[in-house]
Amino acid sequence: MTGAGSRPRSAPAPALMPSALMPLALAPLALAPLALTMGDPAGIGPEIALKAWAQRRAAHVPAFYVLADADLMAERATALGLDVPVRAITHPSETARLFDAALPVLSIALAERAVAGQPSARNALATIASIDQAVAAVANGTASAVVTNPIAKSVLYQAGFAYPGHTEYLAALAARIWPASHHQPVMMLASNDLRVVPLTIHIPLRSVPAQITAELITTTVRITGQALRRDFGIAAPRLVVAGLNPHAGEDGSIGTEDRDVIAPAVGALAREGFAISGPHSADTLFHASRRATYDAAICMYHDQALIPIKTLAFDDGVNVTLGLPFVRTSPDHGTAFDIAASGRASPASLIAALQLAASMVQRRTAVAS
Amino acid sequence: MTGAGSRPRSAPAPALMPSALMPLALAPLALAPLALTMGDPAGIGPEIALKAWAQRRAAHVPAFYVLADADLMAERATALGLDVPVRAITHPSETARLFDAALPVLSIALAERAVAGQPSARNALATIASIDQAVAAVANGTASAVVTNPIAKSVLYQAGFAYPGHTEYLAALAARIWPASHHQPVMMLASNDLRVVPLTIHIPLRSVPAQITAELITTTVRITGQALRRDFGIAAPRLVVAGLNPHAGEDGSIGTEDRDVIAPAVGALAREGFAISGPHSADTLFHASRRATYDAAICMYHDQALIPIKTLAFDDGVNVTLGLPFVRTSPDHGTAFDIAASGRASPASLIAALQLAASMVQRRTAVAS
Repeated sequence: MTGAGSRPRSAPAPALMPSALMPLALAPLALAPLALTMGDPAGIGPEIALKAWAQRRAAHVPAFYVLADADLMAERATALGLDVPVRAITHPSETARLFDAALPVLSIALAERAVAGQPSARNALATIASIDQAVAAVANGTASAVVTNPIAKSVLYQAGFAYPGHTEYLAALAARIWPASHHQPVMMLASNDLRVVPLTIHIPLRSVPAQITAELITTTVRITGQALRRDFGIAAPRLVVAGLNPHAGEDGSIGTEDRDVIAPAVGALAREGFAISGPHSADTLFHASRRATYDAAICMYHDQALIPIKTLAFDDGVNVTLGLPFVRTSPDHGTAFDIAASGRASPASLIAALQLAASMVQRRTAVAS
Repeated sequence: MTGAGSRPRSAPAPALMPSALMPLALAPLALAPLALTMGDPAGIGPEIALKAWAQRRAAHVPAFYVLADADLMAERATALGLDVPVRAITHPSETARLFDAALPVLSIALAERAVAGQPSARNALATIASIDQAVAAVANGTASAVVTNPIAKSVLYQAGFAYPGHTEYLAALAARIWPASHHQPVMMLASNDLRVVPLTIHIPLRSVPAQITAELITTTVRITGQALRRDFGIAAPRLVVAGLNPHAGEDGSIGTEDRDVIAPAVGALAREGFAISGPHSADTLFHASRRATYDAAICMYHDQALIPIKTLAFDDGVNVTLGLPFVRTSPDHGTAFDIAASGRASPASLIAALQLAASMVQRRTAVAS
């Protein structure tokens, strides 16, 4: 039932692919610290920041500071029984000296005390200010990259926030600070198993087919290819494109978009020099032996990209925004208000996000210097 | 970027779920043999049938006979260097006695010699006759279940075949042989990791939202629940339903179908007594610790169901048709014309399909007797 062309894998042992997160293999440069935003203060952001710091030695977590309220961080550490000394700083440059001994926190004032698990729109401005300040820091060079903790859009909307999400807001900030250049944010999810780039994200499934255009495919592939070369150290990135319809439409018999829109765009990109193929039947694109044949998969919509990566790697997936004038990563999960008071949140995805940000900065700096 | 409600998994060690394929734990009854169809004779069907027989002892493959041309089977064995004695039989009942020593083949005449990798519409009638004869055998009790090898729809269409696929054709045969009862075929993909049931299958993605109705959800869940109880030995099946839109629509803010169609249907089924929940954000529904909480996931469309199962289990997935008056399974791959002459095809999925068919028949028979 899965297409005449599909076939069982013949070789029993799939090749292990190199880590998609590409841990840093270069000699470390002296970089500015990473700026970690607070996220929603009622969510798990403060907790996973504390836990990530606590694992700084065992997990080789690169130096970061948190843009948050120092009292919030200290209070959350106490409430969760985490032995993390919190140190208020006045400038990101204090991070390098302090980081081994304490978690550096650069002040963001809350409007009211934040209660874990009970989001408040009164603190939305502080959540946003933390993002604004992180972007300002990468602009003025005091931070090397932005790592964002989860926000809750519904809470921010109550306070007048008008962006579909984090990524779009960061792009708007970039446009204000770097007005001369064009910024198109591209979302990539990266784990040790897989990298995926969804062409469309938080839109209804019924709106997806009309959004898939040759221009969107072309722009996204160019940005993805550049990032893989510059920030991931992959000299000749190999890309695959998933089909929109079952079996990539079977040459037009199950939907025409794969044949009429996607295939021509992929063909043009291949002629442009990209190592790219597709559209491929999406269901057979993500098993181990297939994953070993490419560096990133361009997907058509949210679930097509996120199902495989979260099925394989629920804890260590990282959300990366490509196409911005700075490096931005984030953990691949939400605010988790339901467990924010319990102490059960895992810092694994945040740690992976911090590590990947440092690795990307290191590579980008090495290329530029 | 993945919803305020999503959260990182807190417990480090996911519980291992019991095998979704539910290997037979009952004392074996003396059952009629399984009828295995030929599939497209130019595909890998003959090869994987030969290889499955060769593993009959090591893999505990239940007794089956092939509805095919005995010369084709013998010729393919020779060409691939497989040491499999082929024995033409005149009645399925000869299988039990013969199976340990030779592969039993009940004659289906080809219109012309079949060449591996070169499909011919002239042999389409033989491919169809093999299916017809397998269904006749389960109807008259000489076979206990139908296991189908892959067909190529495009080849059959050239010969006038008018069904969307195997499953729909089997339902049409059932309607002719058992005209008194209503048959709605429901496709399930089962592996050791996961069972999924797509509500829609081979239709364009843009047609999916309109096809998702409360009636389709209700009928599919009832058939799935009955099959899990009767054929899989799960006394109280736990079902989850995937959302159609990203994050299951976030209460209508990313598409309305989850809120307006799916949620009410799931609620009604829960009130009917099903252990069912949803719609759930599909991206976080398939990782290991989540899979341990349910017996089957009802999915909205082809790739949503097939991506997770094929990402996890590319070799041992089985396609099961529920809702028919007989047990039918098949390997979860296509004819693979591209490797049909090479001898590289893996029989793993066919072996799993044979084993699951026998297990289902055994349970169904035990329940009925």
